[in-house]
Amino acid sequence: MTTTTTTETMPFVSTENFLNEWLGHRRLTRRVIEAFPEDKLFDYSIGGMRPFAEMMKEIIDIAGPGIRGIATDNWENASGFDQHSLNKEDRTKEGLLKLWDQSTEVIIAFWPEISEARFQEVVLAFGQYEGPVYSTILYFIDNEIHHRAQGTVYLRSLGIEPPAFWNRD
Amino acid sequence: MTTTTTTETMPFVSTENFLNEWLGHRRLTRRVIEAFPEDKLFDYSIGGMRPFAEMMKEIIDIAGPGIRGIATDNWENASGFDQHSLNKEDRTKEGLLKLWDQSTEVIIAFWPEISEARFQEVVLAFGQYEGPVYSTILYFIDNEIHHRAQGTVYLRSLGIEPPAFWNRD
Repeated sequence: MTTTTTTETMPFVSTENFLNEWLGHRRLTRRVIEAFPEDKLFDYSIGGMRPFAEMMKEIIDIAGPGIRGIATDNWENASGFDQHSLNKEDRTKEGLLKLWDQSTEVIIAFWPEISEARFQEVVLAFGQYEGPVYSTILYFIDNEIHHRAQGTVYLRSLGIEPPAFWNRD
Repeated sequence: MTTTTTTETMPFVSTENFLNEWLGHRRLTRRVIEAFPEDKLFDYSIGGMRPFAEMMKEIIDIAGPGIRGIATDNWENASGFDQHSLNKEDRTKEGLLKLWDQSTEVIIAFWPEISEARFQEVVLAFGQYEGPVYSTILYFIDNEIHHRAQGTVYLRSLGIEPPAFWNRD
């Protein structure tokens, strides 16, 4: 099958390969969550920053609902960057990992629903953040890498070696 | 002008737009370097991690030589992830920022020399790391975001508010 494209959309990476890169990041981030002692996940902080569980809840609130919104234009119940605390029943490592895995499933389910053209369109993500879809998705992932890296400093300061950055298996 | 492409290379983002995303990251990372007090840039550490200047020297050693290598297949004097300490004359904030800016210029100069097909080819970056070019470049940037984020924890623990993550101007 061939399609017509212009030099403007000369590809850096295909959508399929890019999704695989992201899923590799999500596997690594999951391991960083797992590396935290249960209590430190919810109450440890450096310099007044949020505990790692709250940072990860932000990523959970962005990733699944963000990709669903981009695919469907349905932003209902998508709080996005307006941070929400964890429900009492989710305030365990197991609960957080469960939310994480559900979020990964939503990404995998909705990614194929995003049309080729859609990635270059402008979207108002979460009804608030305007930008091209590719840039919006890159931002979701940048934000995941950013907070995960902050978590690795928390781990090091607790004397725990973080999972290897290069391992995305 | 139209070209023929297959669904395999369906674009997530064009090479031109992706370069602009990266340059936005580099502007932000530069501001994080600038936000450090001169002495703390070279000697402050949490949990036995490297000072921020050394992390940034790694990014400098990867980015420019990495893009030059991908564009030209010349990996001479490209130390990459084998970390090197800063020369004595570069051990100032001004010296580090100068290396940073030179690195940005190398990226901008060599990026247009990377052919469309090249981004999907497999490269042995720095003679050591095998992978598709797009994945290798994403890794360079992941690594920048990762160490920059660690620097923001250093800043917070020093009572300094880091530059806004969302601002890439």
